[in-house]
Amino acid sequence: LVSKVPQVLLSIGEGVTCVKPGDKVIPLCLPQCGECSFCLNPDTNCCLKTHRFTCKGKAIHHFLWISTFSEYTVMPDSAIARIDDDAPLDKVCLFGCGFSTGYGAAINTAKVKPGSTCAIFGLGGVGLSVVVGCKSAGASRIIGIDINKDKFTKARELGATECINPQDFKKPIQEVLLEMTGHGVDYSFEVVGHTDTMVSALVSCHMGSGTCVLVGTPPLGSQLSFDPLLLFTGRTWKGCLIGGWKTKDSIPKLVSGYMEKKFNPDVLITHTLPFDKINEGFELLQSGKSIHTVLVF
Amino acid sequence: LVSKVPQVLLSIGEGVTCVKPGDKVIPLCLPQCGECSFCLNPDTNCCLKTHRFTCKGKAIHHFLWISTFSEYTVMPDSAIARIDDDAPLDKVCLFGCGFSTGYGAAINTAKVKPGSTCAIFGLGGVGLSVVVGCKSAGASRIIGIDINKDKFTKARELGATECINPQDFKKPIQEVLLEMTGHGVDYSFEVVGHTDTMVSALVSCHMGSGTCVLVGTPPLGSQLSFDPLLLFTGRTWKGCLIGGWKTKDSIPKLVSGYMEKKFNPDVLITHTLPFDKINEGFELLQSGKSIHTVLVF
Repeated sequence: LVSKVPQVLLSIGEGVTCVKPGDKVIPLCLPQCGECSFCLNPDTNCCLKTHRFTCKGKAIHHFLWISTFSEYTVMPDSAIARIDDDAPLDKVCLFGCGFSTGYGAAINTAKVKPGSTCAIFGLGGVGLSVVVGCKSAGASRIIGIDINKDKFTKARELGATECINPQDFKKPIQEVLLEMTGHGVDYSFEVVGHTDTMVSALVSCHMGSGTCVLVGTPPLGSQLSFDPLLLFTGRTWKGCLIGGWKTKDSIPKLVSGYMEKKFNPDVLITHTLPFDKINEGFELLQSGKSIHTVLVF
Repeated sequence: LVSKVPQVLLSIGEGVTCVKPGDKVIPLCLPQCGECSFCLNPDTNCCLKTHRFTCKGKAIHHFLWISTFSEYTVMPDSAIARIDDDAPLDKVCLFGCGFSTGYGAAINTAKVKPGSTCAIFGLGGVGLSVVVGCKSAGASRIIGIDINKDKFTKARELGATECINPQDFKKPIQEVLLEMTGHGVDYSFEVVGHTDTMVSALVSCHMGSGTCVLVGTPPLGSQLSFDPLLLFTGRTWKGCLIGGWKTKDSIPKLVSGYMEKKFNPDVLITHTLPFDKINEGFELLQSGKSIHTVLVF
């Protein structure tokens, strides 16, 4: 992942009361207006509010609704969360999406139980945050899966008990996992965003009681094919955005948890670069040499 | 559905203690041995025990593991449940699969919440039992869907608040349901067993918090295609066998509930025929003229 440090608020519009100039804030790529039917529903965090920019009546596209790869931006109050005044901006930027997404997928969406076995497909910044979530929930076996072995050291450091590379096996990785566990894992997480690993992750979980969570963003307009008998016998397949957190309520609490040293995702930050080296950040990401690169103005 | 009345036990083998000759019993198409890792797991009812017949070393195939379309059969003790001595065998045969499967899908698998909105695709014997389960769980809106309007009267009698026929609409039924509910139903149940209705049922449920349960048996070896973004935004897709009940523990309790008039699936029995008219029973089923036909020796 590549993140820019969060902003300090410069000014507010009329009627805004939740923040004041000078506050440290995290822009929310998923807003929480608190008023729509989704915000009032305790079981979803998909706020219906959209906040697109327009200029002279024409829509201006902006990355993930927040456009934070810019020095200044304008945010609606439903998409901004005030955080601790003492929070180090070049660290807690991970809570805007990457860490919260992976950690929440384990804690909120899968609801990993103590003593369970988990498998995480993909050990990038989000996948490693799933590892942290599984460990925090008390999983006793955490199996990390990646075709880049360089990710294994960090995965073990964060709580993975085993790490495997699908390229080391002649048989499909789901068969390897079934052999390693008897009847499959209790929880599997797809943090790659490929339809083939989504099916592998589903097959890898226990046929009668396993839960598979889609965390990686599927390619737009993709179609995935699978045998519905995989669900019929008792598996559960689900997904989440930003780890299922109601963002405005939860992200400040996650930052407070960081300040109280409840978890420490600093280890996920492998590079810090000045903003004008943003392309270098993306090259590090694509080559698999970085986990998380933070850009500083 | 077509069921034969449950058996009265004639004799038992060495070491069998859970039943005695003369007991009324229901043969279990899904056993519960109580010892395998699946039976010891509270989150699944898929017992690993199989109980195939053999004759002189060769396997004999038998329908749904129980072969109850015969006057006498042999069952292992893990696949037989003793029921109330007073239970009417020509009624409680519905608890062997049909009623328990639909009712349990709502109660155990979906865990329908009071005040919720449910949609049931397919109003045969199992689908109508899902309606009973949703009503029993306190759903405030229960939408029955079938292309055979003759099923609607019974569905309404059992608790459906609305019934719709996809053939009455020009647009796909999932779009009709989204319009009827705003953002989709809280729980959808596919009780047909077609891959296209499985996807319709998934799309029909709320994008952020909906749960879709596969109850209809998928065609063996079928492949289903769908857009994984449907799960990514927060939907849950799952399935169950026999409504998720641990059979040996639960089916006797369901029969007791029937004796205490907690629920009355008698209305699902539209025909009772002598056993030699079994083919007529299947014709009634295929033509959509029956809900449940009970065969009596």
